[in-house]
Amino acid sequence: MLEIDRIIREAGAERVDERASRKLCEILEDNAKELVLTAKQFAKHAGRKRISRKDIVLAAGYLVSKM
Amino acid sequence: MLEIDRIIREAGAERVDERASRKLCEILEDNAKELVLTAKQFAKHAGRKRISRKDIVLAAGYLVSKM
Repeated sequence: MLEIDRIIREAGAERVDERASRKLCEILEDNAKELVLTAKQFAKHAGRKRISRKDIVLAAGYLVSKM
Repeated sequence: MLEIDRIIREAGAERVDERASRKLCEILEDNAKELVLTAKQFAKHAGRKRISRKDIVLAAGYLVSKM
């Protein structure tokens, strides 16, 4: 579970529009879905059905370099 | 609030290692913090103290093209 309000506070932003935090959630959710789909593909490629930590790490690196 | 388990299910991944979902959370949290910090900078640049939706959208586009 990600607590957006805590993340915003920790980033030192005290005043955030309601629509801004909703948009932030949307973007994070899209990122997360893309990451999981990519990790799933990598797990399958390695002959596994279960997504492991290393699939997530590889997917994150892959998506970052692709963007 | 982002529900990682729901996102994972919706991405069609049924089997996910506990360590994989923890790593996913870490990555998302790092992304979120970077996004908020960048949005905060853009709000300041526009002479505002409150982060608006358009700061988030600009920050997301900026980070994506930078990565």
